[in-house]
Amino acid sequence: AWKGAPQFSNDEGWSFKPRGRLQVDVAGIDAPNDLSGGVNDRLGTGVELRRAYIGFDGTIPGGFGYRVEADIAGSDVSLTDLYLTYKANRNVTLAVGHQKPFWGLEEMTSDLFTSTMERAAFSQAFGFERRVGASVQYSGKSLLVQGGVFADDASSLNTDTNKSWSVDGRVVFMPKLGGGILHLGASAHLRDLGGSVTSTRYRARPFLHTTDARLVDTGTIGATGERSFGLEAAYIAGPFHATLEGHSMTARRPGLADPTFRGGYAEVGYVLTGDDTGYKNGVYDRLKPSKGLDDGGIGAIQVNLRYDHLDLNDAGIVGGRQQMAGVAMVWAPVDNVRFVANYGHLWLRDAAVTAGGDDSYGVDAMGMRAQFDF
Amino acid sequence: AWKGAPQFSNDEGWSFKPRGRLQVDVAGIDAPNDLSGGVNDRLGTGVELRRAYIGFDGTIPGGFGYRVEADIAGSDVSLTDLYLTYKANRNVTLAVGHQKPFWGLEEMTSDLFTSTMERAAFSQAFGFERRVGASVQYSGKSLLVQGGVFADDASSLNTDTNKSWSVDGRVVFMPKLGGGILHLGASAHLRDLGGSVTSTRYRARPFLHTTDARLVDTGTIGATGERSFGLEAAYIAGPFHATLEGHSMTARRPGLADPTFRGGYAEVGYVLTGDDTGYKNGVYDRLKPSKGLDDGGIGAIQVNLRYDHLDLNDAGIVGGRQQMAGVAMVWAPVDNVRFVANYGHLWLRDAAVTAGGDDSYGVDAMGMRAQFDF
Amino acid sequence: AWKGAPQFSNDEGWSFKPRGRLQVDVAGIDAPNDLSGGVNDRLGTGVELRRAYIGFDGTIPGGFGYRVEADIAGSDVSLTDLYLTYKANRNVTLAVGHQKPFWGLEEMTSDLFTSTMERAAFSQAFGFERRVGASVQYSGKSLLVQGGVFADDASSLNTDTNKSWSVDGRVVFMPKLGGGILHLGASAHLRDLGGSVTSTRYRARPFLHTTDARLVDTGTIGATGERSFGLEAAYIAGPFHATLEGHSMTARRPGLADPTFRGGYAEVGYVLTGDDTGYKNGVYDRLKPSKGLDDGGIGAIQVNLRYDHLDLNDAGIVGGRQQMAGVAMVWAPVDNVRFVANYGHLWLRDAAVTAGGDDSYGVDAMGMRAQFDF
Repeated sequence: AWKGAPQFSNDEGWSFKPRGRLQVDVAGIDAPNDLSGGVNDRLGTGVELRRAYIGFDGTIPGGFGYRVEADIAGSDVSLTDLYLTYKANRNVTLAVGHQKPFWGLEEMTSDLFTSTMERAAFSQAFGFERRVGASVQYSGKSLLVQGGVFADDASSLNTDTNKSWSVDGRVVFMPKLGGGILHLGASAHLRDLGGSVTSTRYRARPFLHTTDARLVDTGTIGATGERSFGLEAAYIAGPFHATLEGHSMTARRPGLADPTFRGGYAEVGYVLTGDDTGYKNGVYDRLKPSKGLDDGGIGAIQVNLRYDHLDLNDAGIVGGRQQMAGVAMVWAPVDNVRFVANYGHLWLRDAAVTAGGDDSYGVDAMGMRAQFDF
Repeated sequence: AWKGAPQFSNDEGWSFKPRGRLQVDVAGIDAPNDLSGGVNDRLGTGVELRRAYIGFDGTIPGGFGYRVEADIAGSDVSLTDLYLTYKANRNVTLAVGHQKPFWGLEEMTSDLFTSTMERAAFSQAFGFERRVGASVQYSGKSLLVQGGVFADDASSLNTDTNKSWSVDGRVVFMPKLGGGILHLGASAHLRDLGGSVTSTRYRARPFLHTTDARLVDTGTIGATGERSFGLEAAYIAGPFHATLEGHSMTARRPGLADPTFRGGYAEVGYVLTGDDTGYKNGVYDRLKPSKGLDDGGIGAIQVNLRYDHLDLNDAGIVGGRQQMAGVAMVWAPVDNVRFVANYGHLWLRDAAVTAGGDDSYGVDAMGMRAQFDF
Repeated sequence: AWKGAPQFSNDEGWSFKPRGRLQVDVAGIDAPNDLSGGVNDRLGTGVELRRAYIGFDGTIPGGFGYRVEADIAGSDVSLTDLYLTYKANRNVTLAVGHQKPFWGLEEMTSDLFTSTMERAAFSQAFGFERRVGASVQYSGKSLLVQGGVFADDASSLNTDTNKSWSVDGRVVFMPKLGGGILHLGASAHLRDLGGSVTSTRYRARPFLHTTDARLVDTGTIGATGERSFGLEAAYIAGPFHATLEGHSMTARRPGLADPTFRGGYAEVGYVLTGDDTGYKNGVYDRLKPSKGLDDGGIGAIQVNLRYDHLDLNDAGIVGGRQQMAGVAMVWAPVDNVRFVANYGHLWLRDAAVTAGGDDSYGVDAMGMRAQFDF
């Protein structure tokens, strides 16, 4: 079978598929001219190999499966999915290794299929990442339950003294409703920094990833742990979808007030070419054109509108607030190729980076991406 | 053909197979509370992606073959086997590239198939690793002769001034004896550090690899070269095996006494499910269940008992002595998946890390591994 | 189909092939004993994993294609080709991603197929490399036109403030002539360093790559941009080929004189076994034995003679001049395996590294390579 690349399999239950992806981004970020800290030099036009994955996945007779994949775009190795799975029965799968700790709808959706080039600001600000752990998942027809115990990301675990750990869980109810699918989900996360890690930091880039500058940023704050909660709601009906997602993150600071930061977004999208919005098992999935360039068609075109909000102010900590209103156009000329163009206007308040001494200002960000995967 | 992953081949002599492996470890190391140098913070519970390999191997018509593989578990690239081979005739194979310099039975045995999660303490202490070189191997029915000339490991050769080189050889006699196989081997190694490298260091972790702390450690000692010798004896009969291996390492220190450090282990193992112990061509091989989970069976279960000894004291250098008595349980539910649980008690004498000022103390180490490979 | 490794494809237009290569080098560089800066310690005998590539390429229905490949030989990730292509029609291909900016015949020829182990000194001195950009190529029967807009290499783009960009183009006319092919080409390159990069540097290793020492070196010189031009001429007729290539590089230094540095080489080669010289689409290609080791033959043997010149002196900058006369023997016992032995004598003038205070001296360099690829 072909799934972007050949998938090999035999009757005994063996299967194997190479995996890869490439995302090439170009962007322009237009901010006021007199940003503090020389940040203007880091905005403007930017070009980036956003992601370049290479890996394998497969199945092993007896119910086992695996994935080994890494991102090499940064001219180094950034580990992504590396795990061994065991399918205990039709609905229950165990996994051990480097995997996502179930932080919510958009974080669990592959970066190949997000509505804009980058995920919501809170996803980045609250440090969502893969971590080494053990998890169990129940996946039913309209119910998904995921939970696990995690240490830290693989790279941080290279430090012997890192003893941080967390318990993470997510529940999604996804019944059919009026010709579409209703998606309702919640997740909870408790993390102990383990003693040797004694601080945390929350910050987000301005809409795009070509810069490493963050205009909102709590700076490093002493902490012993974190707890966070997420809520997800979506409705998907053929070419239409709407999503509402929010997450709150509380830093545990013994002897001090525990600040709670919040972020969320609201989004509607429509596939102009009439193709179905991709959705499967509690996450958004691939936009597949019914008539691609290879069939003499034009592919699938989706337009998404999004409002995004991140508030890093609480309990005496002033990290700033960032709002974004934007539009994205996604074009999938064929199944495994995708071009994205998106524009966002940002409103900054109490920003960590000031413009001529003013902590309130606006920023425009326009980005384009070329992508393939297999 | 399937060997964990599909192996492609054709009539002309071409073949190709993807390669991969993942080892996820969790461990607990319990030592006295007042270790010097803050070492306690680096023990306790640890989680580690031990190995994550990705690569290819294959054959080329005319007798050529190759392997390109790297370990990315550390979120960087650690090169493993990268070589070109030429099969001169049925028994003789030449190889050039990054390969193991034939240090002995356990070192030459793949890390996928060792009896405990980690190899013997001496294997780590004496710096066994892959190096860039040229080798020749004669592989007969009951005789294996291996030898080569090597520079240094690929990463160290990035330094221009590194001119170290070595001559390494190993001989194994492996006749059938009384329904089993007798394995008798010896290896010898002469290394010149080449002038720009002027020191060496011998040290070992406490039984497991989740920590980088070493309780026995010679520290950096000036040296111009090394010579080492290994002896191997084993008997493998169906589900039973016993191994005895030792290695002595002498640092050449012109104008000073040359210290000789020694290590060794003794081991017996039995496959409770009655399956054969894996052994092939002078090394231990895969434990294959005759009735795996995919056949309604339970897989193969092996129990191994081991005593390990490392003595880093000699000629005025006091690196310490580490003894370990341990037990390991290996479970292969199916051919390419393996779980290991092992426990070891360590006795430290003259340790480089002291406990409340005392250089003699005990440590308990318990580790578990989940592994797959193809 | 097999192309070193299996190439999978189906009727819809999907295809997929793994890619890999390994080059293992050993070399000896003999220079006068009293080089400045302790450079002698970095010459002498050297061993290097020169390249170790791992990757995939393939095609996607609708005219798309891709490659993802990286070099891990340095025990890190050095990105090579990572791009998405679109074949607009039979002759025109667009590409976006990390790719070569069309610097000339030898640079565009794969390192697998160069006449000596390393490319001409100017290729290295003038910083030819892959960069992230967008390009278009017209490939006709006897005309090749290539052009693109490029940012910087992927690794340099990790720095936010890097705003360098260039326009690069190359034209090749390659008519049949007298039983062979005449190759005439030219390329032009304009680069703006973008403000945050304020200097450039031109330097080259002595013939081989096992050392990082450079005997000719302009040192860091302030600059705001570069412009360079290349000319290529070659004639390929069966086992014979001759090549003449030159490149001039001008650093733009506002307020100062703009220095222009020049390099070039002349080469003739002959395949002693009578096999054809590999040439395709404006670059040299694989040397394929008509009767390889697998067919009871000896493979293909090519002998190449080369004179190489690099002049890094101009406008008050004295980087030195390096001339090389050398001979290379290339042996391809079978299609995808290659051994190279080459020797070069170098004449240094005004060298950046002096020998006993003298900036004029000679160096001998001998290198051997074992290589496979797929």
